[in-house]
Amino acid sequence: MKKLVLTGAAGRLGSYLREPLTKMCDELVSTDRAEAIGKTYPGETYVQADLTDLAAMETILEGADMVVHFGAIGDEAPWDDILQSNIIGAYNVWEAAYRKGVRRVVYASSVHAVGMHVKTDVIDLDAPHKPDTYYGLAKCFCEDLASLYWDKRGVEAVCMRIFSAAQVNNARALGTWLSYDDLIHLVERSIDTPVVGFTKVWGLSNNDRIVADNSKAAHLGYRPKDNAEVFAKEILADTPPLDNKDPANMCLGGPFATVELGNSGVAALGVVDDRKEI
Amino acid sequence: MKKLVLTGAAGRLGSYLREPLTKMCDELVSTDRAEAIGKTYPGETYVQADLTDLAAMETILEGADMVVHFGAIGDEAPWDDILQSNIIGAYNVWEAAYRKGVRRVVYASSVHAVGMHVKTDVIDLDAPHKPDTYYGLAKCFCEDLASLYWDKRGVEAVCMRIFSAAQVNNARALGTWLSYDDLIHLVERSIDTPVVGFTKVWGLSNNDRIVADNSKAAHLGYRPKDNAEVFAKEILADTPPLDNKDPANMCLGGPFATVELGNSGVAALGVVDDRKEI
Amino acid sequence: MKKLVLTGAAGRLGSYLREPLTKMCDELVSTDRAEAIGKTYPGETYVQADLTDLAAMETILEGADMVVHFGAIGDEAPWDDILQSNIIGAYNVWEAAYRKGVRRVVYASSVHAVGMHVKTDVIDLDAPHKPDTYYGLAKCFCEDLASLYWDKRGVEAVCMRIFSAAQVNNARALGTWLSYDDLIHLVERSIDTPVVGFTKVWGLSNNDRIVADNSKAAHLGYRPKDNAEVFAKEILADTPPLDNKDPANMCLGGPFATVELGNSGVAALGVVDDRKEI
Amino acid sequence: MKKLVLTGAAGRLGSYLREPLTKMCDELVSTDRAEAIGKTYPGETYVQADLTDLAAMETILEGADMVVHFGAIGDEAPWDDILQSNIIGAYNVWEAAYRKGVRRVVYASSVHAVGMHVKTDVIDLDAPHKPDTYYGLAKCFCEDLASLYWDKRGVEAVCMRIFSAAQVNNARALGTWLSYDDLIHLVERSIDTPVVGFTKVWGLSNNDRIVADNSKAAHLGYRPKDNAEVFAKEILADTPPLDNKDPANMCLGGPFATVELGNSGVAALGVVDDRKEI
Amino acid sequence: MKKLVLTGAAGRLGSYLREPLTKMCDELVSTDRAEAIGKTYPGETYVQADLTDLAAMETILEGADMVVHFGAIGDEAPWDDILQSNIIGAYNVWEAAYRKGVRRVVYASSVHAVGMHVKTDVIDLDAPHKPDTYYGLAKCFCEDLASLYWDKRGVEAVCMRIFSAAQVNNARALGTWLSYDDLIHLVERSIDTPVVGFTKVWGLSNNDRIVADNSKAAHLGYRPKDNAEVFAKEILADTPPLDNKDPANMCLGGPFATVELGNSGVAALGVVDDRKEI
Amino acid sequence: MKKLVLTGAAGRLGSYLREPLTKMCDELVSTDRAEAIGKTYPGETYVQADLTDLAAMETILEGADMVVHFGAIGDEAPWDDILQSNIIGAYNVWEAAYRKGVRRVVYASSVHAVGMHVKTDVIDLDAPHKPDTYYGLAKCFCEDLASLYWDKRGVEAVCMRIFSAAQVNNARALGTWLSYDDLIHLVERSIDTPVVGFTKVWGLSNNDRIVADNSKAAHLGYRPKDNAEVFAKEILADTPPLDNKDPANMCLGGPFATVELGNSGVAALGVVDDRKEI
Repeated sequence: MKKLVLTGAAGRLGSYLREPLTKMCDELVSTDRAEAIGKTYPGETYVQADLTDLAAMETILEGADMVVHFGAIGDEAPWDDILQSNIIGAYNVWEAAYRKGVRRVVYASSVHAVGMHVKTDVIDLDAPHKPDTYYGLAKCFCEDLASLYWDKRGVEAVCMRIFSAAQVNNARALGTWLSYDDLIHLVERSIDTPVVGFTKVWGLSNNDRIVADNSKAAHLGYRPKDNAEVFAKEILADTPPLDNKDPANMCLGGPFATVELGNSGVAALGVVDDRKEI
Repeated sequence: MKKLVLTGAAGRLGSYLREPLTKMCDELVSTDRAEAIGKTYPGETYVQADLTDLAAMETILEGADMVVHFGAIGDEAPWDDILQSNIIGAYNVWEAAYRKGVRRVVYASSVHAVGMHVKTDVIDLDAPHKPDTYYGLAKCFCEDLASLYWDKRGVEAVCMRIFSAAQVNNARALGTWLSYDDLIHLVERSIDTPVVGFTKVWGLSNNDRIVADNSKAAHLGYRPKDNAEVFAKEILADTPPLDNKDPANMCLGGPFATVELGNSGVAALGVVDDRKEI
Repeated sequence: MKKLVLTGAAGRLGSYLREPLTKMCDELVSTDRAEAIGKTYPGETYVQADLTDLAAMETILEGADMVVHFGAIGDEAPWDDILQSNIIGAYNVWEAAYRKGVRRVVYASSVHAVGMHVKTDVIDLDAPHKPDTYYGLAKCFCEDLASLYWDKRGVEAVCMRIFSAAQVNNARALGTWLSYDDLIHLVERSIDTPVVGFTKVWGLSNNDRIVADNSKAAHLGYRPKDNAEVFAKEILADTPPLDNKDPANMCLGGPFATVELGNSGVAALGVVDDRKEI
Repeated sequence: MKKLVLTGAAGRLGSYLREPLTKMCDELVSTDRAEAIGKTYPGETYVQADLTDLAAMETILEGADMVVHFGAIGDEAPWDDILQSNIIGAYNVWEAAYRKGVRRVVYASSVHAVGMHVKTDVIDLDAPHKPDTYYGLAKCFCEDLASLYWDKRGVEAVCMRIFSAAQVNNARALGTWLSYDDLIHLVERSIDTPVVGFTKVWGLSNNDRIVADNSKAAHLGYRPKDNAEVFAKEILADTPPLDNKDPANMCLGGPFATVELGNSGVAALGVVDDRKEI
Repeated sequence: MKKLVLTGAAGRLGSYLREPLTKMCDELVSTDRAEAIGKTYPGETYVQADLTDLAAMETILEGADMVVHFGAIGDEAPWDDILQSNIIGAYNVWEAAYRKGVRRVVYASSVHAVGMHVKTDVIDLDAPHKPDTYYGLAKCFCEDLASLYWDKRGVEAVCMRIFSAAQVNNARALGTWLSYDDLIHLVERSIDTPVVGFTKVWGLSNNDRIVADNSKAAHLGYRPKDNAEVFAKEILADTPPLDNKDPANMCLGGPFATVELGNSGVAALGVVDDRKEI
Repeated sequence: MKKLVLTGAAGRLGSYLREPLTKMCDELVSTDRAEAIGKTYPGETYVQADLTDLAAMETILEGADMVVHFGAIGDEAPWDDILQSNIIGAYNVWEAAYRKGVRRVVYASSVHAVGMHVKTDVIDLDAPHKPDTYYGLAKCFCEDLASLYWDKRGVEAVCMRIFSAAQVNNARALGTWLSYDDLIHLVERSIDTPVVGFTKVWGLSNNDRIVADNSKAAHLGYRPKDNAEVFAKEILADTPPLDNKDPANMCLGGPFATVELGNSGVAALGVVDDRKEI
């Protein structure tokens, strides 16, 4: 692997991926709309760019083998913001990838593409889209975009439906946690698997209380190791009885299942910054 | 039913719907970006407006019971055009419907949302999205948008996946035809069914060689009467052996399955205007 | 066919079946807990008996080829009443059938065994039980009882899940109607089919707006002829917009989906006697 | 269509197809191992040949557009006989078709490829193979052969799983009948459908008591018109109660489900020649 | 958790649960129809009561958070006995739970609710009911009762389909074993999971030769640790060839699949008391 | 277990099985068409025989409890060769087993019975046949033969669909590897499981990148231990980007998906003898 591109490199999850990605390629180009991301790692270059600028994306993807696309608003937001960053931005990434002969997009999709499904159904990867927010709707769009570019233009994609890549600080996360180590492992497998076509996969750690079925993504070789159960005793002790008619408790999307469209779902969680989840 | 709104009223299919819709309501407001649509029918008013103008949509939908949304580019087109009319335009319709308390959107979705599926699979309504063009991708987006507005905001939707609502002039259309009478019947049932939630339905006549399975939409009571088989003898006599490895012949989307993204699929059909199909 | 037994012969649906059943056998024994059922038809005998009396059931079933079991409380009722008539009574019928070598039970099951399923899902016969009332729960019990007696003791059963065998007087019934003629046709096929094992079938007329999928019962040869659509225009004109979040409108069971357990669902319909539906 | 080839032209079903096939092509070459088939129809030529002779098959298929392959032993028979005619013979037909550029094989498969399935399950076309005899096993082989030649060599196939193409003279046939007219219609559609890839279809008339689900073959446009129910009254009157634990009554294959491997299933039916069924 | 209630506390499995349950709550009320259960554990109170006494159940459930319902006849028995304890008794528990605001019933369901399914099918939790005995029929009833009380009254339920919670002393148990430790773990998870709605789960240890698929209950976090394979060598050495046409060997229910209705299935096993299995 | 028979004992996989099989029975009869197989193990006898000789097979199977059938051409080959060894030879084994009262055939089926399925679909054991070669077609035939002999004659079968039982020396094998130890374990479970009926199972090690879903064979207790991931780093480093439109990379069958029918698929791999895979 000569060149990898990481979008959203200044974001919470992007930041975690920068160092591991440098080890998987000769050259990592990290990009974000932030002016800077601090000290770069060996083999890493930073390029400021906006996803909504197709020409800039083309320049950055020139010569790349793959792009790891995490650039997007990471929370529910007003439609116009989601439209710009998460829909138009994604189009630009796929279109630039096609124009520049990039083999594959490794994409940070999300549980919120299917967040209105009921948790106790334990859906598999073939369950239909059922978004819970504009944020989730944009994830649906990107998965369909990925399907289109694979079928018509041969650009491969792995759509990683990330759950709660954050601290485990509530009962829902006992089932939905994705540890950083497992996230890195998942991205690695999404990159090193020789042929993926159009693949969806749940981004979940090996939690006892896992809420979705990954058997249709077995070929990707994703074998998570962490388990949120280590936090269970403490968290459950602090958990009051939950309203079992509230979609925030019953649906996969958690608080996003009830947040007003356009309003922050993370804020709805009432959590501070370092604990936020998507 | 007091007030209905029809978008895309100047379009090919919209034009056919104007008169029948006037019979289903006290007041039909037809709208399009065209300056005029000629003589209106009794009970019909025409309002020029652009779908990309949310405020205009709100004004038009004020007091409406339902909106029949056919306004969109009716062919594959460059991304930016699809984005404006078929994605942003649709968002505006649903958002305006929500703000104005409109009960239901009856939406002209399309086979092209699933056009890359293989025809001989005879898929049902639960098959996953598999768009064949930007045009189809926008249809996928709208179906997910409809799902979101139903789940989160209680706006009902019927997504009519229209196949070939045009003259039957090729072998594919023997299976994919939707006659105008059946289209009108389908729209009527989509309007008069008291409760629909989020319903998808194939827009297909009662063709012998029907290519998709509508059993999951039975509650809608759509019972098409026309059958393209009356054209079969003549058309098959003119049909040379078809390349059975060509996606244009094997996939539900027909020529859209091979057209370059952004180029006209209708032109790819090599057909004149009055015979074009979506 | 020498001898048929009909339970619930004095009930609303039983009364309709008496004459047609006499034409399918040499001897029809009609039974009910009512003292009398009026004038009998040629070939018909009436025997008063209570379903809760196993010995009486054995006497009546002596020498019978099949039993058509419609005897039960035909509405939601307090648990103790359902327990006696609809659970213990049914056990007695099956057990007596077994003891007397009766080949088959043709059973009046009901939509209410699955009444909490969502109507727009258009479920098929394999959908899991999801009762809406004690009444529906007893129907579930009887279907499982039928399964047990077939698997362990070779007593065949047809479980006819009857929907609305009554006047069409509301929008729901446009989809759920079972006309008396179609009911008779269904009972006839349930009797004359040589081998049925354990068969479930939806008791629905050929309504345009049919709400369940009978394809798994095709072998029974039930081909209904009536269609509630003839009542649609008038009924829909009288139907106000329905609350689409109300289970009574969204679920297969209709008003039974919201009635308090133990209270009459028919009364919940606010209908007079000759229009009631189960 | 210039040239069609019919194998098994001297057989019971082949004989019925000869005349209709002459109307679908310029030249029909009928073949069988019989010395002669009597007077030929206009446009028909007869060539004696044995299916086990690959070179002969190549000669006959030279220049053909399609081959309608009905040549085989039409009953259960000793393994060595089935092996020669129904396995090796079929291989020769497909291989010759490939070598000579023949577009499609229209194949007389059979219910006996899935004859051990239980009738009341009403299986669809995706149910796994479950043969009841060597005869059925050879049908399974040919369907897999057809799949292979389509996937690897582009030879199309329609596998028509014929049920009881014979007089309706027993209760089973009320569900399994395929009238000659419907057989001809099925063969016509299997030929005139422009693209079929690898298609399976049940060969069943429009019987009330139909025992399998053809919805996955809808694209073929097969719409049978006859209905064995016209014979029901008379036949059921003559039918004694059937043993419902006997596979011959419970399984799709009927008497083939219990016949000893290698022995005639038709003889097991105890029927005379003109009433036999496959 | 303040107060838990355990029914069937004097039974074989109930006895094992008493101590672990005291650790999950401030107050455990154990109940059974036995006069006494010996020395109670710290935090445990014993109340003698009969399940068939609704008033007594209400008294006991007053103020409880959840009830762990193991009270029932633990073997096949005459219908009248099953009716009283396992059907009416269960109704009383659910009804009392509803009246007293108890959040959840953790219920000892059983494999015998689906015991007539074939073992080699490896069914999942969505497979339809297929009881093997009156005992199993009552389990079916309770699962449907649980579904009803969840849908209509918001009482949650976990239906644990317990297999062989006993010594491993025959070949069947190599696949069907549920160790006491895993049973306790399963009950714990059924209690501590914050939201369960209506959940079914197989009660099986982590046996190599596991006979059912628990993937649809993943959200419960049940991760069994024991494995009957440690007993395999010895048991298989003592196992003669088994009759593979005997339902007792082929069906999930084991000997219950062939026992006469109403007769003891445990006795059919020919085992002494401490080895018995349900 | 008194007597086991192993066919194909001189073959690559057969050779590995000889010693472990001697430990599972009193007497192992190894057979092959080779003149000799070198020194026999304690308890082993070698008998030279050709699978195409039914009488010889009968003699060898006399008194046997089970037969482990690995005798066949282990690669794609001309049709006539496959016909003799892999079809007629297999028929002889099953027929001889039946005639001699052998309980079970443990059969070396192959991925190539379903080799044209797309790898990223991660099919389960119910996926339809989709052979990639004559070799795979013969495996399909044998599975259907096994089904027939179980249903009609009570001969049990385990069809082990072996993937790559060879050195891991290419990227495909990271998912498809079956180690020799796991192969032996699989054969042992196929023998020692008391009742198997007709069971299919994927022969795959516990690879991270596993390409098929074995959940429907859980009852067999096959729990592989090896994992090709230990070879991943080295192999992926040597793997150039693979053509993701090439069936050899996209389909389960690997190079067999593109090899010409009748030509060696192993040779297509370009590998030397000790690395070959089936």
